[in-house]
Amino acid sequence: MRSIVLYCPLTRLVIMVMKKFINDPNNLTTELLQGYALAYSDKVKLVDDRIVVRAVPKSKDKVAIVTLGGSGHEPALSGYVGEGMLDASVVGDIFAAPGAPKVLDALRMFKDHVGIMFVILNHEGDVMNGNLAFNMAKKEGINVQKILTAEDIAPGADAPIEDRRGLGGAIPLYKIAGAAAEAGKSLDEVVAIAEKFSQTMATLAVTMKTATHPQSGQYISELADDMMEIGMGQHGEGGETGPQKIATADETAVLMIEKLIPAAKLQSGEKAILVINGSGATTLMEMFVVFRKAHQVLTERGIKVVASRCEEILTVQEAAGFQMTLGKLDDEMQKYLEAPSNAPYWVTR
Amino acid sequence: MRSIVLYCPLTRLVIMVMKKFINDPNNLTTELLQGYALAYSDKVKLVDDRIVVRAVPKSKDKVAIVTLGGSGHEPALSGYVGEGMLDASVVGDIFAAPGAPKVLDALRMFKDHVGIMFVILNHEGDVMNGNLAFNMAKKEGINVQKILTAEDIAPGADAPIEDRRGLGGAIPLYKIAGAAAEAGKSLDEVVAIAEKFSQTMATLAVTMKTATHPQSGQYISELADDMMEIGMGQHGEGGETGPQKIATADETAVLMIEKLIPAAKLQSGEKAILVINGSGATTLMEMFVVFRKAHQVLTERGIKVVASRCEEILTVQEAAGFQMTLGKLDDEMQKYLEAPSNAPYWVTR
Repeated sequence: MRSIVLYCPLTRLVIMVMKKFINDPNNLTTELLQGYALAYSDKVKLVDDRIVVRAVPKSKDKVAIVTLGGSGHEPALSGYVGEGMLDASVVGDIFAAPGAPKVLDALRMFKDHVGIMFVILNHEGDVMNGNLAFNMAKKEGINVQKILTAEDIAPGADAPIEDRRGLGGAIPLYKIAGAAAEAGKSLDEVVAIAEKFSQTMATLAVTMKTATHPQSGQYISELADDMMEIGMGQHGEGGETGPQKIATADETAVLMIEKLIPAAKLQSGEKAILVINGSGATTLMEMFVVFRKAHQVLTERGIKVVASRCEEILTVQEAAGFQMTLGKLDDEMQKYLEAPSNAPYWVTR
Repeated sequence: MRSIVLYCPLTRLVIMVMKKFINDPNNLTTELLQGYALAYSDKVKLVDDRIVVRAVPKSKDKVAIVTLGGSGHEPALSGYVGEGMLDASVVGDIFAAPGAPKVLDALRMFKDHVGIMFVILNHEGDVMNGNLAFNMAKKEGINVQKILTAEDIAPGADAPIEDRRGLGGAIPLYKIAGAAAEAGKSLDEVVAIAEKFSQTMATLAVTMKTATHPQSGQYISELADDMMEIGMGQHGEGGETGPQKIATADETAVLMIEKLIPAAKLQSGEKAILVINGSGATTLMEMFVVFRKAHQVLTERGIKVVASRCEEILTVQEAAGFQMTLGKLDDEMQKYLEAPSNAPYWVTR
């Protein structure tokens, strides 16, 4: 509801109003988390203002899975707290990492568990604060191992890990690792399967229309009316190739899936998960059309899609665009993807 | 990807490109349904080009639940086909009802079941084609009863039924009736509980930013930059009160919930379902903030929210806005809402 003054050569001045249902932008993260916890109070609760945990905690015999990340990407990441997925999500301000002390508080909550797997999506602030908290927790003798997801292939599938962002592929990773933890696997085993999935999954993001930052009211990036950009990252940071003319759904799907197949190291006869993750304003209708073509290409290559999802999983406000995630699955991963979860935004039965 | 030429007084001419990931607009509904059926092939399948049914049909001892409606509102309505919810959804073109012969085909598919409950959302084309098919099915001796949802209170809670549109409240109705059918209730019993819920639920839609029609590329309606409209209906048809200045999330929530409480005939001590249904571009973040305030008001009035959902349930392309649905629940309805469902977009366990 903040106003931004934009210059217009015709009227000399135009007042643009950000059209979002919010109150004071400074309270936004707190209010949204309170609303979320009220809406799913049988499944999650909010503690210490910024830590979302399960409403019904599990016994300490289970490996706990903890993650961190900024708000503004709902339902990520806290939407995946629940039986069969995450034990806790530590939430930062809009698009900002939570501070290390808050993350340490969350890790301490699970110090008596048999172990903690701590998942960090590769973004600078998350990595810095996550590593700080991780090192402090280790010093306190907490049995924690971390895993960094960095599956964005926009800079090239072989680019160094520091150049590859952690995108929506973290969410199926939570699901696989969460089910392994629920099945009583050891910390080493849970981390091993998460690492294995992380090595053979890949994501590309495409954007058509940028979003407004809900606190500043400003556009996050810019794209001309007839352009789209593949490899935009999570916030519209921009890719390697730059904008291109808008293509059809099928052309876009082919462009993306053909880069993802080799990155996911998928061969004919192998099994895959294919996820189309809407950025915000792109309709499910469009996601289905894109999914259809990507599925067709995979089928032609002899790759069997055994798990899939079209949904807004990790969003960036009202941006138009989507992420396509492709991951290679073995029988165990497939079983864990199908295992029950009651996380509010990834329910399986 | 169609272009529209819009006149601009500065440049004399501006080409505006609709930014959607589609192919040929004429194939859109077919392609999206094919994509949907591929993405959730273990749960649903597409037959006869426009009828979505369960992948694993139930025994004929169960009451079948069938509905109809235009595409362009994904995940509605076909997203709710699955165990514990719908048996079939007959799909029309974008925002258009399917023809009566197709609907009749769908009803015939369940003619050997103990009975069919046929749900129509109150929109002119759906009612006309739905009634035609219903009458033809009756003449063929099919045991079908119909129910019309018309819970939009924009024209006033006491307006005649023909003035009240059928909005997102149909979806929890599918869930309640679907679970009752799954529990082996008779057709009369399933219709009775659906009717009961339908009489004490109410919905209001608010819009901030209109959407483009995916086939014509044109804006569906118009709203000035600093305005919003409560009572906009499902497609932005417009309400009784007209546009008003954008309010905060809390103000909007209060305005809406205070109209919905008496319409749902809710008294202190009673139980309710509260649903915030995103129109398309409104973020889950905003929905949580709105939910928080509406929940607060209900709690202050002594009304207990025992079921809730914040999600894109019945959308209208990339419109910014949401629907708020409030319904009175008895113990039986609550039990049915909590019963298992594997419909792709309303999974419960």
